Order: sequence, then structure tokens, then C-alpha cells
Amino acid sequence: MNGLMMSFPLTLNAIFRRAETFYPAREIVSRLPDTSLRRGTLGEFAGRTRRLVRALRQLGIRPGDRVATLAWNHQAHLEAYFAAPLAGAVLHTLNLRLHPDELAYIVSHAADRAILVDQSLLPLFECVRPQVQIPIVIVIGGGAAPDGMLDYESLLDATAPIGDEPDPSEDTAAALCYTTGTTGKPKGVLYSHRSLVLHSMGISLPDVMGIAERDVVTPVVPMFHANAWGLPYAAVMAGAKLAMPGPHLDPASLADLLHRERVSIVAGVPTIWMGLLQLLDANPATYDLSSLRTMFVGGSAVPQAMIEAFEQRHRLRIVQGWGMTESSPVGSLSHVPLDMADAADADKYRHRAKQGRPLPLVEIRARNEAGIVAWDAKTMGELEMRGPWVARQYFQQEGPSDRFTSDGWFRTGDIVTIDGRGTIDIQDRAKDLIKSGGEWISSIALEGALMGHAAVAEAAVIAIADAKWGERPLAAVVLKAGASATADELRASLAPRFPRFWLPDRFEFVDEIPRTSAGKFQKSALRARFGR
Amino acid sequence: MNGLMMSFPLTLNAIFRRAETFYPAREIVSRLPDTSLRRGTLGEFAGRTRRLVRALRQLGIRPGDRVATLAWNHQAHLEAYFAAPLAGAVLHTLNLRLHPDELAYIVSHAADRAILVDQSLLPLFECVRPQVQIPIVIVIGGGAAPDGMLDYESLLDATAPIGDEPDPSEDTAAALCYTTGTTGKPKGVLYSHRSLVLHSMGISLPDVMGIAERDVVTPVVPMFHANAWGLPYAAVMAGAKLAMPGPHLDPASLADLLHRERVSIVAGVPTIWMGLLQLLDANPATYDLSSLRTMFVGGSAVPQAMIEAFEQRHRLRIVQGWGMTESSPVGSLSHVPLDMADAADADKYRHRAKQGRPLPLVEIRARNEAGIVAWDAKTMGELEMRGPWVARQYFQQEGPSDRFTSDGWFRTGDIVTIDGRGTIDIQDRAKDLIKSGGEWISSIALEGALMGHAAVAEAAVIAIADAKWGERPLAAVVLKAGASATADELRASLAPRFPRFWLPDRFEFVDEIPRTSAGKFQKSALRARFGR
Repeated sequence: MNGLMMSFPLTLNAIFRRAETFYPAREIVSRLPDTSLRRGTLGEFAGRTRRLVRALRQLGIRPGDRVATLAWNHQAHLEAYFAAPLAGAVLHTLNLRLHPDELAYIVSHAADRAILVDQSLLPLFECVRPQVQIPIVIVIGGGAAPDGMLDYESLLDATAPIGDEPDPSEDTAAALCYTTGTTGKPKGVLYSHRSLVLHSMGISLPDVMGIAERDVVTPVVPMFHANAWGLPYAAVMAGAKLAMPGPHLDPASLADLLHRERVSIVAGVPTIWMGLLQLLDANPATYDLSSLRTMFVGGSAVPQAMIEAFEQRHRLRIVQGWGMTESSPVGSLSHVPLDMADAADADKYRHRAKQGRPLPLVEIRARNEAGIVAWDAKTMGELEMRGPWVARQYFQQEGPSDRFTSDGWFRTGDIVTIDGRGTIDIQDRAKDLIKSGGEWISSIALEGALMGHAAVAEAAVIAIADAKWGERPLAAVVLKAGASATADELRASLAPRFPRFWLPDRFEFVDEIPRTSAGKFQKSALRARFGR
Repeated sequence: MNGLMMSFPLTLNAIFRRAETFYPAREIVSRLPDTSLRRGTLGEFAGRTRRLVRALRQLGIRPGDRVATLAWNHQAHLEAYFAAPLAGAVLHTLNLRLHPDELAYIVSHAADRAILVDQSLLPLFECVRPQVQIPIVIVIGGGAAPDGMLDYESLLDATAPIGDEPDPSEDTAAALCYTTGTTGKPKGVLYSHRSLVLHSMGISLPDVMGIAERDVVTPVVPMFHANAWGLPYAAVMAGAKLAMPGPHLDPASLADLLHRERVSIVAGVPTIWMGLLQLLDANPATYDLSSLRTMFVGGSAVPQAMIEAFEQRHRLRIVQGWGMTESSPVGSLSHVPLDMADAADADKYRHRAKQGRPLPLVEIRARNEAGIVAWDAKTMGELEMRGPWVARQYFQQEGPSDRFTSDGWFRTGDIVTIDGRGTIDIQDRAKDLIKSGGEWISSIALEGALMGHAAVAEAAVIAIADAKWGERPLAAVVLKAGASATADELRASLAPRFPRFWLPDRFEFVDEIPRTSAGKFQKSALRARFGR
């Protein structure tokens, strides 16, 4: 027997209507390329979005068509975030840090029918354009557009806003984002209206990000990375103010934005915050960041030392999040659990450097060769997850994928332990895990310990082929300017904390660790350099 | 084109698994009939619920069957809240304040197959039982059960817990609650797993009730009133501690519970809090309620004077909520909007005495004879609403209902104005509205003003038939003990604040205002007494 409640679909249309109706005066602030701040409102955003919907249709965009963006974080990008789905189309965010050939592959695979490009990114787009067929090109923020392209502002000026329309089915596709691993071709994740709305509600809960009308939200994480962790949708739903950094992600510009706009919630990858930490250390009294309630950090493992440094030196609270493009992306957050309220600070910090517990409606398990592993904080296994905002397959991928289990779970590729509370502690990416003499060694644990050494700026640990043991760990280390340390000293610093067979045989001192476009260590490049 | 996200259903099963997995040590405290406190945990609750699921099945309960409860707020009732839906059945909460004949009608209409009854409520049930056919009777908290009935604890002891099972479809019926108006037969509202999960997420948002793991939640509102406003489900989802009052709703027992268990969130009807206010006023230093973050008050209009009294005399913050059985029930909450942060206290209090703005995904409009009314804070109309936790029809009701519009909105029967921010301000129930000379008069506005008079304890205003004007207002007034006031004095106190034609022609001084089983003024009884 079914319930007798309304079949009210979960759609971005409903979130959009809410913001337009209840929060029209709430601000959206965007840093422009010339570093000035553009000040808009949710009401203005809503009117412009309604114009963009009609403009897209008049240009021939049909339901299901993909509308790409190649843009930084700003109000016009937010307009596209809503206008494409409201037009019945699919928003496809392109990662501007990818190589033009990779972008061309993704644009062609998605068969994008239109693209909105920041004027400042036209040089990049010109490298992509000859390789793709994309009929409609709209330039944001550039005045007169080049031949064959449309100017965003002129387009909006020339178009009347759409009126209210019926909501789509909640299962309708709304957004598309490609994930670019270090192996294999990029793969598209196709979000639905339903998954984006449920994710917005999930991350807004008090024990997750706690996003409220009073908040001022700055997504430093780019809007082309997994929906900027869902913050644009959640902020619009709550009527929160948005303060968007545009292309200016340097520490001084960010600190200025956080200070000036009284930001309460920020989110971004560790690299960004490492830079901000150095800036704040060097200029302790320049910025008033007292409005900042939480810094959400994710995208790669957050060093415990960074959590401690922000809290002890600047009274700023970092909460680590974990997720993937395939999970919309937020899967877990690392708040201090209630039963650790009275624990020692050191224990709390250690806990917060883990990936935490899953959000409501997200379920986890881990599996190794022997089956589902116990939640004993010791046994490693590959993390699997399921939930209403987790992908069930990739976009237009032929054949079955080994990333999805036969019983409907997503295989994350992260090797984890899980403790009795359900806390995820990532030990490694499956492909980065080191297997030595039949036992697993966590490269991330070794890296975290090395980066806690006073002389070490960065460290990456990779597997090197070994005739006797199968694989052995090698540590690539960047020393801090002016600091020195020998391989033996570093190995000795690790010895008290790890089994003897975990200690790297080789240490290589390098100038920098190569990174992927998402800011993660590119271990494939290190393996190529030092031999596998 | 559809998105490619998992078809992960929104079910109470998922909420249950979450609590069992992540928060097994979290407490559930229940006040027993002998006033002692039973201390359980979510883990114990989960194990007992799994036993109850199997027990219900072994007793012959099949998917879709209705399982009734006649019980106060306590852990066993919470077990039934989850066990019935987990068994595929429908939890049907019975209002123990109804007349036995009305209960018999409801039990028969719902065709309940089983009932769980508190031992202390057996005398009531014995008045119902001869009028109904209900094969399975389980007695909670009574030791050996009477002949033909089963003892709850013995039943659990004799039954093994169920294992994990596949989730049902999210549209499956999970709970049933009858709404008893003062006119017409009781009508059943049939909630689905989906609507209950979405409502749980909705009320947990920071701008709604903000329910978190760290909270201690006391639903004073009975679990037989519209799911206790959804708090049992939301608290279990968050891993919050529950402190349940059992049958002891007197002010001293409640204050003791709030003090002893460090409660942070309570919810109940105004009558309850009026009693608590008098207790706190009389015993200002007895109870430490500093842990109390918010008192959610709803079910009938909250007098502004009560909001002020709690805040000014006891530093306790009341937030008014509004909703109906048909809306799961929470539809709106009256937080101070952001743009009133700097308003005068008097303006804030006046705002908080309104019903506030709707939750995310809930949409509102108001309509009068001329159509949809403007949001001008002046024009009255009947409030209509829609959303994923609003009913689309009543349970087993024959023929169409005039409570649902042809375009899919629910007609609430509340006459409201809506201001430019979207704030609902209830003027009256449609049936209580007074129409005098073609103009509407709000009985609630007059009552609120009268109850602000120093000599008045309670006041209810009703319409009396009038040959010339159609209807005219009559005020029934209960004076405070030892206070005195004449009709002319009361009329004079209203005169500066209302149009002349709003002022009641008659004042009747009475000993008490009759109330419905839900604690609302029973105006039909007053109309019968004073003539219509």
C-alpha cells in the first residue's frame, strides 16, 4: 500500500523559486578579473537566470542538451548553474586546469551544444575549439564578443525572462561533471534534480555543514569541481549570501574577501589553505577573520599539522570532508563525535585528520580479498558507498564498469580502515597502496608523518618494484627553504610510529611534487621518474 | 534524459540503520507511570525494534496492515514507530484524549489489525474494545497481561531479532494519523516513508529546528499528535538523545525532566508552556534550564506575551511553528528574519508571534473570492500549501474532497495574511472567521489583544448571528484569579488598536474556555452556549 502524500518532485526549480520568493535582497558578491567586487542579489540573479533560460531555448537548446561552462566562480556561473537545468538542459562544468586535448575529448564525449566561457579563458578555449564541434559560444564578461560568439550581457539584455513553468520529473538529468583519474579516460557523472536537492539538504544539516540564511558562504573550491561541493545549490536554498572569489585564488585576495565580506563558511582544497596559513602567520593582525565559523577542507588528505596550526595560532576551525565526483561529492565529514567531547586535544586532532562519518542516507562498507572487513580501525579494505546522491553508472560508458558492485554499491578506489564509530580513515588510493611481502603499507600515513617533520615541506610516498618483496616504499621529499635533513634522519623519525617493514628504503629529495589539475599529488609522474 | 544516480529509496529503514550503526550508545530516557526514569540506548532500542518486527509478523501482521498504538511518549512507543513500518505495516497512532466512541470510529475506519496499549490506558481501551474488532492486543509496561492480550516485554523476550532486509519502495505507506476537526468525521492522513524522511531532513535544517547529535530532544507534544511533529524520526536520524515525558505532562515533572536531562530542544502546545511559565515564575531558582536552546511551540497561536515573558524573565527562547496533521506536520517556523536583525525588540516579538515562513520545499499561497491574494500583509485569504510532505488525499475517503484544489494544493482552512517576506500571519480558522457587514474580522487578533490585558487569563472570540451585519463578534473572557475588569474597560483597551466595527458587542465572563482534545479552543461549544 502506498502513502497518500503529494508527488511533489525534488527539483532545482523549487530551490530557485524559494530563493527568488523569500530571499531576493540577499547578496551575491563576485570578484571580477580586475579584482573589483561585483555586487548582485538573489533577486537580480533570479531575473537574469530567467532571461538566460529563454535565451538558451531561442538559441536552439532542447531538453537533455548539454550546456558547458568554462568559468571561474562568480554570479554568471551561478546563473548558468540554474538556467541550464531550468531550460530542461544539462549543465556541464569544464575543468579549466585540464590540458586542451583532454578538454576536447570531454566536450566531444559529452556532445556539448553550447558553452559559456569567461573572457579571460578564451585563449584556453581557442586551443580546444579547433578540435570540437560546439555550435553556440557565449562569452561572459568581455564586452563585444569575437566573431562567431555571443556576448553574455547583450544576450540577457535582448531576452525577456521566462515565466513560471511546470517542474520536471525529479529524475531528470540536471548536471554533468567529468572525473579525471590518473588512469583511463575521463568519465562523466550525470546528476539528477533529485540527487542535487537531496545533497543540498544533506550538506545543510547541522552536523554536516550547517548552512543557514545568516551564513556568508565562499566556495573556493571551483564550480567546475563536483558542483563546488554542492555549496552553490545549498546556499541558494538557504538564502545565504555568496561571496565568490572569481579567478583570484591567491592567499591575499582570499583573505581580503573573507575579511571584507564577513564570510562564515569557506570550502577548498588543502593547498589553498596552506597558502592562507602562511599569509596569516606572516601578517597576524592584518585580517579580521572572526566571522569565519568553519573552513571545510577536502579534495585530498588534510595534514593534521594544518588543522592544529589554524586552530592554535588563528582560532580557525577546519573540518575535513571527504567525497568524490561520483558522490555529488560530499560523503563524510570529520566532526569530533559527541563521545570524544572530553578527549585530550591530541586525540581530537588525530580524529579530525581522518575522513569522519558519512552523512545521513549515505552508507559505507569496506572490502578486501576476504570479504567485508570489520570496523576495527585496523583491517584495510576498499571503501564502498551507496546513497541517493551516489552515481549508479557513468555517462555514455559502454559495457559494465568494475566501479559498481553487483549488489548496487559504488567502489571508491580508496583503501580505508573504519573504526567502531564508523569513522573512515583513508590509508591510500587503491592504485597508490604499497603491497610489500603480502602486507599493505599506507603511503598516506607515511606522508602525513613525514610532513609533520620540522624540515619537510611536502612528501609523497610511492611503490617501487622490488624483486624480493614485490613492492617497497620510496619517499619523495621537498625540504623547507633553508632546512636540511638526511634520509637516515627522516627514517629514524618514522621508526617509532610504524612497523619496521613500512619504513621507506629510499628517500629522494626533490624541488616539488608534481600535482594533478585538482591539486592532488600526481604519483604516476613520480613513479615514471623513479622507476616502478 | 534521466540522471544516472542510484535509485536509493528514502526510507525509515535507512534512518533506523543509521542510528543503530553510528549512535548505539546514545540515550533514550523515558518517564514511567511511577515517575521513575527508564534509561535505554539507541542500540537497545534497535535490538528491541528488530524483535518487535518479527513478533508482529509471527502474529500475522502483513504488509499494509495497520498497527495501532494507544500510548504516551516513551521508548516502547518509539520502538513501535519504527517496527510497524520495518515490518511493512502502517503505524497508526491513536489520540488517547478522544471520546471512546470517536476512537472506535477511527479504529474501525482504519481496520487496525493490532494495537499496542499502555497498561495505564487499558481502562480507556476497555471502553473502545466492545465497539471494534481488533485481533491482536499488546500491553506495554504491565507485567502479566489480561486474558486475550499479550505482554509486550514477554513478547520481545520470546522473539529473535530480524536481520537486515531489502528496503521498501519509498512511496510505501508507513504511518497513519487521523485529524479530528470540530466538524465532520475524523479523516486519516497516510504518510509514506519518503514523506517522513524528507520531513525529518527538513525540520533538522539549521533555519528550522536544527536538530544535531549533541541535542537532547524532548517531544512534549504527544506521539499521537502528527508524529510528535516528526521529532522522534529526526532525533533518531541525528543520533540525538531523547528524553520522553511519559504520561507526566504537569509543569513540575516537565521542569524536572528538562533540568535533569539537560534538554536542549523541547516542543509542545502553548497550554503546556503557560503552566511551565507559572511554575518558573513562582520558583525562579529551582530549575537550571540553561541547556535549553529553543522551545518550539505550536498547535495553536502562541500569545506574544508568552514569548516575551519566557525571554525576559527566564532567558528562554520560544520559536513558534505552524503546521497540520496533513503536512506531517511542520509547514513554517517563525524565526526572526535576517533583515530584522537590527529591528526593535517590540517589532521582533510582534514578528515572532506570527507563523513565519515555510520550510524549504514547502510552498504557500493564499486565496480569497477574488483569487490569489497579494503578499501585502493586509489582504486575507485561505492559506494553501504544497510540498513533498503534504497530503494529496485522505485515507479511504470516498469521493473528491474540497480540501484539495484542482491544481494540486492543499487548502489549510486557515485565513491568513502574508507579508512581503512571505511571513504567514494567521487571522483565523476559516470556520471561526467573523464576517460583519461584508468585512472580515480576525477572532485571533482580538483574542491576542485581550490576552495582553493585565486582568485577562484567556479569551476566545466567536461570531454571533446578527440581523443587520450578518455576524458580530462576542468575546468569552476568563479573568485572572483576583482580577476584575468590565466589558467597557476591555472594549476600551481594544479601541486604539482595531477598526471600530471589530470591537466585540458582547463580553461574556466565563470560568474556563472549553478545549478540544488537542488543547485548542472549542469554539463550537461557545457558539452553542451563547447562540449563533
